[in-house]
Amino acid sequence: MVTVDQFDELASKIDNWGRWGPDDERGTLNLVTPEVVVKAARSVVSGETFPLAMGLSLDGPQTGAGVPGRINPVRTMLGINVPIAEGEHAAAWSDDVVYSPVQAATHWDALSHVSHRGLMYNGIPADSIDSSGATRLAMEAAGPIVSRGVLLDVARYEGVDRLPPGYPVTRDVLAAVEQAQDSPVEEGDIVLIRTGQARRFLEGDKNGYRNRPVPALDWDAPLYFHERGVAATATDNMSFELLPSSVPEVVLPVHVLCLVRMGMVQGQNFVLEDLGAACAVDRRYTFHLGAMPEPFLRSTGGMVHPVAVR
Amino acid sequence: MVTVDQFDELASKIDNWGRWGPDDERGTLNLVTPEVVVKAARSVVSGETFPLAMGLSLDGPQTGAGVPGRINPVRTMLGINVPIAEGEHAAAWSDDVVYSPVQAATHWDALSHVSHRGLMYNGIPADSIDSSGATRLAMEAAGPIVSRGVLLDVARYEGVDRLPPGYPVTRDVLAAVEQAQDSPVEEGDIVLIRTGQARRFLEGDKNGYRNRPVPALDWDAPLYFHERGVAATATDNMSFELLPSSVPEVVLPVHVLCLVRMGMVQGQNFVLEDLGAACAVDRRYTFHLGAMPEPFLRSTGGMVHPVAVR
Amino acid sequence: MVTVDQFDELASKIDNWGRWGPDDERGTLNLVTPEVVVKAARSVVSGETFPLAMGLSLDGPQTGAGVPGRINPVRTMLGINVPIAEGEHAAAWSDDVVYSPVQAATHWDALSHVSHRGLMYNGIPADSIDSSGATRLAMEAAGPIVSRGVLLDVARYEGVDRLPPGYPVTRDVLAAVEQAQDSPVEEGDIVLIRTGQARRFLEGDKNGYRNRPVPALDWDAPLYFHERGVAATATDNMSFELLPSSVPEVVLPVHVLCLVRMGMVQGQNFVLEDLGAACAVDRRYTFHLGAMPEPFLRSTGGMVHPVAVR
Amino acid sequence: MVTVDQFDELASKIDNWGRWGPDDERGTLNLVTPEVVVKAARSVVSGETFPLAMGLSLDGPQTGAGVPGRINPVRTMLGINVPIAEGEHAAAWSDDVVYSPVQAATHWDALSHVSHRGLMYNGIPADSIDSSGATRLAMEAAGPIVSRGVLLDVARYEGVDRLPPGYPVTRDVLAAVEQAQDSPVEEGDIVLIRTGQARRFLEGDKNGYRNRPVPALDWDAPLYFHERGVAATATDNMSFELLPSSVPEVVLPVHVLCLVRMGMVQGQNFVLEDLGAACAVDRRYTFHLGAMPEPFLRSTGGMVHPVAVR
Repeated sequence: MVTVDQFDELASKIDNWGRWGPDDERGTLNLVTPEVVVKAARSVVSGETFPLAMGLSLDGPQTGAGVPGRINPVRTMLGINVPIAEGEHAAAWSDDVVYSPVQAATHWDALSHVSHRGLMYNGIPADSIDSSGATRLAMEAAGPIVSRGVLLDVARYEGVDRLPPGYPVTRDVLAAVEQAQDSPVEEGDIVLIRTGQARRFLEGDKNGYRNRPVPALDWDAPLYFHERGVAATATDNMSFELLPSSVPEVVLPVHVLCLVRMGMVQGQNFVLEDLGAACAVDRRYTFHLGAMPEPFLRSTGGMVHPVAVR
Repeated sequence: MVTVDQFDELASKIDNWGRWGPDDERGTLNLVTPEVVVKAARSVVSGETFPLAMGLSLDGPQTGAGVPGRINPVRTMLGINVPIAEGEHAAAWSDDVVYSPVQAATHWDALSHVSHRGLMYNGIPADSIDSSGATRLAMEAAGPIVSRGVLLDVARYEGVDRLPPGYPVTRDVLAAVEQAQDSPVEEGDIVLIRTGQARRFLEGDKNGYRNRPVPALDWDAPLYFHERGVAATATDNMSFELLPSSVPEVVLPVHVLCLVRMGMVQGQNFVLEDLGAACAVDRRYTFHLGAMPEPFLRSTGGMVHPVAVR
Repeated sequence: MVTVDQFDELASKIDNWGRWGPDDERGTLNLVTPEVVVKAARSVVSGETFPLAMGLSLDGPQTGAGVPGRINPVRTMLGINVPIAEGEHAAAWSDDVVYSPVQAATHWDALSHVSHRGLMYNGIPADSIDSSGATRLAMEAAGPIVSRGVLLDVARYEGVDRLPPGYPVTRDVLAAVEQAQDSPVEEGDIVLIRTGQARRFLEGDKNGYRNRPVPALDWDAPLYFHERGVAATATDNMSFELLPSSVPEVVLPVHVLCLVRMGMVQGQNFVLEDLGAACAVDRRYTFHLGAMPEPFLRSTGGMVHPVAVR
Repeated sequence: MVTVDQFDELASKIDNWGRWGPDDERGTLNLVTPEVVVKAARSVVSGETFPLAMGLSLDGPQTGAGVPGRINPVRTMLGINVPIAEGEHAAAWSDDVVYSPVQAATHWDALSHVSHRGLMYNGIPADSIDSSGATRLAMEAAGPIVSRGVLLDVARYEGVDRLPPGYPVTRDVLAAVEQAQDSPVEEGDIVLIRTGQARRFLEGDKNGYRNRPVPALDWDAPLYFHERGVAATATDNMSFELLPSSVPEVVLPVHVLCLVRMGMVQGQNFVLEDLGAACAVDRRYTFHLGAMPEPFLRSTGGMVHPVAVR
């Protein structure tokens, strides 16, 4: 078990508070320079596109456990083939409406999603979130999320379809995968980490997908992100990090390190199976990644349909 | 006024039913080949990113007129800084939930959004939409929406900030703008058409933004899309096409021509002001466009946060 | 097993189509005359009030099985102690919003809730329900639901806390309970039928509450309602009637007989434990029953918080 | 204008904190004894029923002003005539779902709806409301709301269909109407106050219904409620009290006096037109009033469909 002192020591090491000024709300996304965006475009070779989101429906990954009210989305019709006027030639329209937790399925955690000791990224007070939403560090404050993506396929590295429950994706594991793949992660990259866990969801085993422990990030993984200058990261599981975690008193140490201390948005429930398979074939692990969250203002998260273009 | 016969004649000319097989549900997005996607990446030069969505909130563009229930989104908190465990070191989370029409603000119309004479694209019966949603031609059936984008800046072509109410964006206007810009539209491109109308919304004049007539596509614009092999198109207004239209008996002739006859998804409420300004500076009108709709299954539309990368 | 012919024979016997005119949408609630309402008031002796609804929350009786989207309600805050103005003396408000299926917990089925062979009560076409809701036979068409209530406590009659799974509450059972209780049911009464099944819900066993078979009305119970001139009826379970039913081809024979053929609204998930206990003490089984559904217009059902006043 | 000192003096006079014990959350509803409930039943003479709620729909009274997110309800279908099984004899079901602010139309304000100087009724801290809702003084804590109702028809007293904008319904006005009607208000009664303002809503003039000033309770009306021992009160307007109020620094003095200091729930948007007309004919102003709020747990208000039975 890791102590609070050890946790705080690591936190100090990776801390980005003040790095981009006292008013910054973008955090590590500041590392995505125009040069990085151009590089992302240059990584497109074969023109394949890989959508990375789960379908949003009552069959989504939520099981009723976890955050109260974080249900699967309900979508209903506002109109079905309603004639827009009388007469046989008039068009007819159909429309729909959704009730959906922002974090129901594939999403970004905004920097306001987690607070620690009363504070959020850059020392912004947690109580800047109120019933009107996040007045600071909301999803829209992150700005565009488009960069070069790099897949770190941990499951493939381990030679399995999916990592076993509780497999700890540590800093050293990430570095080893990077090296084995020969896919150097550079400043401004967005790192997608494949554990294979999403297979369970795709196979219809929602409880198996969600129930802990799952293979996930261990507490020191943020050190890797810090060392490489990663702009954002996402995983193919629901909890992002190991639960129970290695730092029991903090409970969600990786959330705190990434969101609060580094100011780095983190993605969950990304589906990386097809992308992983394609990367493995030609051993190209970089791509253009577009992952713009829906701009629900003042939200602590962002629904997103990420797409990798190789 | 255009008669139903004239409308049907144009419809026959641009019809794509059967073109990609009897079971096709992607329509003109089939024109986006890997080669086109590579070309899209090649159009990235300066690495600038332009998000093109309106913010989603109670201050959105809906005014209560139009489709009943197509309100502005409501977002509320599921939790605010809820400690995940006891103890001073435990992380705290915040989460939210939205109620939102799919077509509340920036969105794609799926091919199931409009039917005509009981049919949708490819002759699929309109009654394949029921209370469970669109069992055919739903948004997810469109597949990835990533291609090269081309901006046709009609307002700038006319030398105005925004086109006057009722300005008809015809086939000939589109061709003239394309020529004046020297930005040839090629097969598989997604065309973004700027009227400047979104300025009204950005300036807080919601009624001015919505109330008809607005500058919009005229009935024969789809002929232009057909001739160029356009994969998808979007505008910076709410109605997409002129209302009242030039074909009074059909009421929504452009919707019918694009969605039903061509099988081409169409976007609305795209914000093109910053993109337009940037393109005008260096006269580069092409870019990588990522516009993946949120995958609410069986939906007749798709919330989207499009992004142009130049 | 009961055949369709036998079912149709019973249906003919109890049919009320046309009884209150060709345009009637109230059905048996027409039997609640002012005299009945006065009699209901006269049945109040001790001034005790018994609320009969389940609490509405994420802990409601829905388990995800059954009607897709019939989830437990989600309630969130629109504001928490928001000061209405500046200054230490200004009031502060809190407000909330719900997303709730109309039939999530305690509710009335409106006459439009079920159709049979394309028709609803009084021969009204089923397709008068469309995406805008029930244009005929909506909940509001039922008018006031206030009458004398009579409790038929079947569980107590059988000497058990709750009836065993699959116990068939037949016409003869109802008549026997009525006689044993010496509580004659009269024209215009609303009959509440206690199986004790709601105990399972109150004890936190949601699956036990819902999972079939449960003790419930058997197919010929409507004959009893018809013979007595019952205005409405409600049970303390979720399915109202036996499932699987005795008429496999109709699946929901009691629904069809009550709603479609008699034109009688039916209530579900009423909690009758305290009321049953009180009635048993002094053997008074009649009371004033107020059960006004929330007037969501065009709804096929009605949320309701019924109250018995003894 | 009334000063804060004068307000505080009146508040002290009517204060009920501690009156029913330090843990009480029912406030003046404690005054509804079984004897009062019996008396309510005895007031039923003619057996007429008067539903008092507005219809809940997109045509509700909300205009977009006021509490952000307090929109008109949206109701959509979960299913339309969905066959429950194959075969021509199988029943088909229809179901719906609503998104509705609790205080969208006819409702009770729970005691947690308003706080003052950080406190609610009985000195309970305002911060007992959090993102999970009202952990104290929620609507369900009020218990049953059934009592004798008394209509005070101020508009009829003044000889008008509806009172003019800004008409102050003071303590003296209420006492005068009571005397003129010869309808003594007794301890435990629920008082319904008719201004005629709801006519504007019924006539389709939503802005006229809502826009201030409207005829409403003046700041000292709670003194009348206190003197008579009123259990609850409701009005036929949206704001309940005069806005702008006579106590500018408190802004909502009547809300504070009723909810916070007396512990008395208050109803809004009750429709009293038919009831008023009936009472005027035979000059009977008392009735059984059933007004059970929907039990959404932890809510700061309660949707309700009140019904008067004369």
